[in-house]
Amino acid sequence: MTEKLTLDGLNAAGRGDFIAMLGNVIEYSPWIAEAVETMRPFATSAALRDAMLDAIAKALPDLRLKLIRGHPDLANKTQRAAGLTEESISEQDGAGLDRLSEREFSMFEQLNSAYRKKFGFPFILCVRRHTKDSILDVFAGRLENSPADEEQTALSEIGRIATLRLASLLANDASLPVYGELSMHVLDTHSGRPAEGVAFELIEIARHGASRTLKQAVTNHDGRTDAALIQGRPVPIGTYELRFHVADYFAKRGVLLSNPPFLDVIPIRFGVSEPEGRYHVPLLMTPWSFATYRGS
Amino acid sequence: MTEKLTLDGLNAAGRGDFIAMLGNVIEYSPWIAEAVETMRPFATSAALRDAMLDAIAKALPDLRLKLIRGHPDLANKTQRAAGLTEESISEQDGAGLDRLSEREFSMFEQLNSAYRKKFGFPFILCVRRHTKDSILDVFAGRLENSPADEEQTALSEIGRIATLRLASLLANDASLPVYGELSMHVLDTHSGRPAEGVAFELIEIARHGASRTLKQAVTNHDGRTDAALIQGRPVPIGTYELRFHVADYFAKRGVLLSNPPFLDVIPIRFGVSEPEGRYHVPLLMTPWSFATYRGS
Amino acid sequence: MTEKLTLDGLNAAGRGDFIAMLGNVIEYSPWIAEAVETMRPFATSAALRDAMLDAIAKALPDLRLKLIRGHPDLANKTQRAAGLTEESISEQDGAGLDRLSEREFSMFEQLNSAYRKKFGFPFILCVRRHTKDSILDVFAGRLENSPADEEQTALSEIGRIATLRLASLLANDASLPVYGELSMHVLDTHSGRPAEGVAFELIEIARHGASRTLKQAVTNHDGRTDAALIQGRPVPIGTYELRFHVADYFAKRGVLLSNPPFLDVIPIRFGVSEPEGRYHVPLLMTPWSFATYRGS
Amino acid sequence: MTEKLTLDGLNAAGRGDFIAMLGNVIEYSPWIAEAVETMRPFATSAALRDAMLDAIAKALPDLRLKLIRGHPDLANKTQRAAGLTEESISEQDGAGLDRLSEREFSMFEQLNSAYRKKFGFPFILCVRRHTKDSILDVFAGRLENSPADEEQTALSEIGRIATLRLASLLANDASLPVYGELSMHVLDTHSGRPAEGVAFELIEIARHGASRTLKQAVTNHDGRTDAALIQGRPVPIGTYELRFHVADYFAKRGVLLSNPPFLDVIPIRFGVSEPEGRYHVPLLMTPWSFATYRGS
Repeated sequence: MTEKLTLDGLNAAGRGDFIAMLGNVIEYSPWIAEAVETMRPFATSAALRDAMLDAIAKALPDLRLKLIRGHPDLANKTQRAAGLTEESISEQDGAGLDRLSEREFSMFEQLNSAYRKKFGFPFILCVRRHTKDSILDVFAGRLENSPADEEQTALSEIGRIATLRLASLLANDASLPVYGELSMHVLDTHSGRPAEGVAFELIEIARHGASRTLKQAVTNHDGRTDAALIQGRPVPIGTYELRFHVADYFAKRGVLLSNPPFLDVIPIRFGVSEPEGRYHVPLLMTPWSFATYRGS
Repeated sequence: MTEKLTLDGLNAAGRGDFIAMLGNVIEYSPWIAEAVETMRPFATSAALRDAMLDAIAKALPDLRLKLIRGHPDLANKTQRAAGLTEESISEQDGAGLDRLSEREFSMFEQLNSAYRKKFGFPFILCVRRHTKDSILDVFAGRLENSPADEEQTALSEIGRIATLRLASLLANDASLPVYGELSMHVLDTHSGRPAEGVAFELIEIARHGASRTLKQAVTNHDGRTDAALIQGRPVPIGTYELRFHVADYFAKRGVLLSNPPFLDVIPIRFGVSEPEGRYHVPLLMTPWSFATYRGS
Repeated sequence: MTEKLTLDGLNAAGRGDFIAMLGNVIEYSPWIAEAVETMRPFATSAALRDAMLDAIAKALPDLRLKLIRGHPDLANKTQRAAGLTEESISEQDGAGLDRLSEREFSMFEQLNSAYRKKFGFPFILCVRRHTKDSILDVFAGRLENSPADEEQTALSEIGRIATLRLASLLANDASLPVYGELSMHVLDTHSGRPAEGVAFELIEIARHGASRTLKQAVTNHDGRTDAALIQGRPVPIGTYELRFHVADYFAKRGVLLSNPPFLDVIPIRFGVSEPEGRYHVPLLMTPWSFATYRGS
Repeated sequence: MTEKLTLDGLNAAGRGDFIAMLGNVIEYSPWIAEAVETMRPFATSAALRDAMLDAIAKALPDLRLKLIRGHPDLANKTQRAAGLTEESISEQDGAGLDRLSEREFSMFEQLNSAYRKKFGFPFILCVRRHTKDSILDVFAGRLENSPADEEQTALSEIGRIATLRLASLLANDASLPVYGELSMHVLDTHSGRPAEGVAFELIEIARHGASRTLKQAVTNHDGRTDAALIQGRPVPIGTYELRFHVADYFAKRGVLLSNPPFLDVIPIRFGVSEPEGRYHVPLLMTPWSFATYRGS
């Protein structure tokens, strides 16, 4: 990753540099950076973001509509071939929209075209807060809204996109706490200590198409991972499964197990609904029992 | 099912009838029924079974080998087309050997032929104690044995088959406790009562080929099912998953859930290693936590 | 205990015998048995009980008040010395009212006298549904009621007393399911089996005065007791503690424990609010963890 | 507390100052500080401590015995009246030896006199690692030892005392990790969040004499306490109880509870055997269930 900008740097930059640096925080709309440039200095990143969103809110309706219309469709091969901003590509790829099955592409195509037909602008969603499944759910749901509501929703999603782009551009100043976290912890209640050396996978469960493994790791001496499983970004809304290989762990510790063991791979399936939330998923286990809960 | 025989009936039957009734308890070997006929009356079903196995143990080695050789292969299409005993067909079908994929058929073909080549007789296993996965595991394992050990193992499996055939022929007299049991129980620890109306499935998890749903049901007022999930037979050695639809249950009870819920479908995966054992799998759950254990 | 009467016997008895048998079902009030005698035969015990309560409801107000006034105070030494019905003595002793400290006697004395002064009749409570603590709580609460409400409450408690006296007089006919149940179950999730041989106590926890041990026992092969801890009577409203000696159990099984063990005696404290309810209190435990819940 | 010394300060101090500062690290034995003074500078606090213990190990037997004999008895009123070191008083008081019942004083008196009679020197124990109960247990156990073993044990306890005195004298330099920790965490699995505002007590359970409350507190927004319950010192060997007032918590949150509640005050009783260990005791709870385990 390239070196981060600092808020001080932005505050001190020349007008042209300032506009260039923030040019793509809101897709194809340097006029927003221009509008806020004179309000410098900003005390916090959040203040800068608020000023940019405020500029949108105070813009003429036509300009606002043009801004919305400037956004790309989701999962649109033709547009991608013609060229998207680097930010759009990275965001859509992160949600797996570059790895769709034919059936999924066609679902997106139908939804995109129905949406454009009804509202006259593309469907805008901050996809870094979503998985493929939740995008399709939200998409179908928003098709039912009124045009006025959808325009509001589109602007609110543009605000979320801008916040995340700004946060990834700037060295963190704690005024933009837009990130959630997903972590786990394995306790061996058979021997009364953290379970070290448990192999596990984190899987994104897909209703449409194939599930995918996000992470494979082994617990450290404290039964955890050194870093959270997902951090420094929102935890995408969706369904996940942690699969813990506990029979291997107990066998290595010399515990006598039946064949097959009563518990071998323990799947813990859970849903994420708040991308900015903290999700901690502990596993308490013996060879004959286990428990989990939303921890903290 | 046809009406059960009774031990009294067997004890009182004419010699010919007695032999006919027990003719297939041990595959294609009426001589065993003949050998024990004169030992009547038997005090219990187990005593009758023991006498039959004793007759095999005391038979001439050649006759014993002929008995072993008289058994069919597992999952052999040619033999099936040529005709098997009704008992063999029902036992093999129960373990899913009539629904194999091409790949699985070819695994069985290779194992059957390697086994016959090494030992000179077919692979014998009491398949009602097994799933497809565990049959393949045991098959591969037993190929490593010495011929003498395998002959002993084959005879011991014939004893298990005979026990189950006898038990299904006779009205239960408690001297043949050859059955295991699989049951479950759902407790709602959010409201402190048994969870009534929870839909769930019992699935046999296959490592080779597709998993299959054994049962779909809804918990009764006591959070259980009226009858055990598996009873009146051994619980096949293998891996299972119970999937409990808990978000639907809590939503019906008016509990506010996130979207998606933290817990929606809870999978509990467990292994069965003792077909004659009692497996009780309770689920304690709230919308935010669950626990399970091998109960009693 | 003397032999139980049967409903058939009551239905067939001579008038005098019938009245004598039921004379004390409602304290000092043979006129109620007289009133229902002609309504025989009764189909169930409950029908007989209902008829008796109906007779009270239809009696002249003065007679009803006389009935209420005929009841003894709770924990009144003078009255006890002068003589109470055998039923009253047994009921009061069961709740521990014969083992009060000086302080408790004086609490009862003050409450009795305040109650009589306000309402003109004694405080009536079906004490077999209560512990000393809950009697004192209810007593203090009911002093706040209006006289009309208290008369109703007194009659309703007389109905509860009559139901229990009738049920203990008659061989059970399932129409009077007035009994609750308290049971427990210990699961050893360290070894995946019921915990056999765990010593434990059931203690009634008293806020006023000393707690008392109701039962000491050892779990059987299924981790339970052969009979429920409390059954064949209401479970008295109150606070209880089960104390499980788990370190002794694990030590006997050869599990290495620290000194002192992390878990030695596990106390499970719980309250009973529905004397006619079923309370099942399981304990799931390893040397390093335990869990409990209201089971079923 | 007075300002802490630093290791640099000790290394740089004049000879007289150095000896004065460390004079009581080992009871009444400035000769040890004298012996190590010339070895300065010490790289770590642990190196200094090791040098002091080494000086004892290398001293003439008579001097070592004199050192042992220089220690006071535990709980000896006469010695206390005659004057002890400030360190001894603080250590003995911390373990509650200044608040003994008559019966306990007499137990100590008998043990002290039996011990002196058998070994010819006082019973030495690092009491900051103990509770009254565990001191009495260890005392009785050590009376059974041989004189040679006891001399060794006494020296090892003197080492522990010295380590703790040195650590409390010096600003922490992480080379003396002699402290354990006791902490807790309350999770509300009814609502899926940390339980904020749960009142609880930590109690030292005494087998001999009265239990005493060590701490009363209320959980913070994360279901914890801002600082650990015991830290910056060893966790005394003994038995403890945490009592959580959960019914009050749920009632405040508007959860409907029975009267009395099924769970009101939850006692969690546990033992501490490793004073330098980390003890984390989580509570997972709903109004109808709870679980605990040795966490990390």
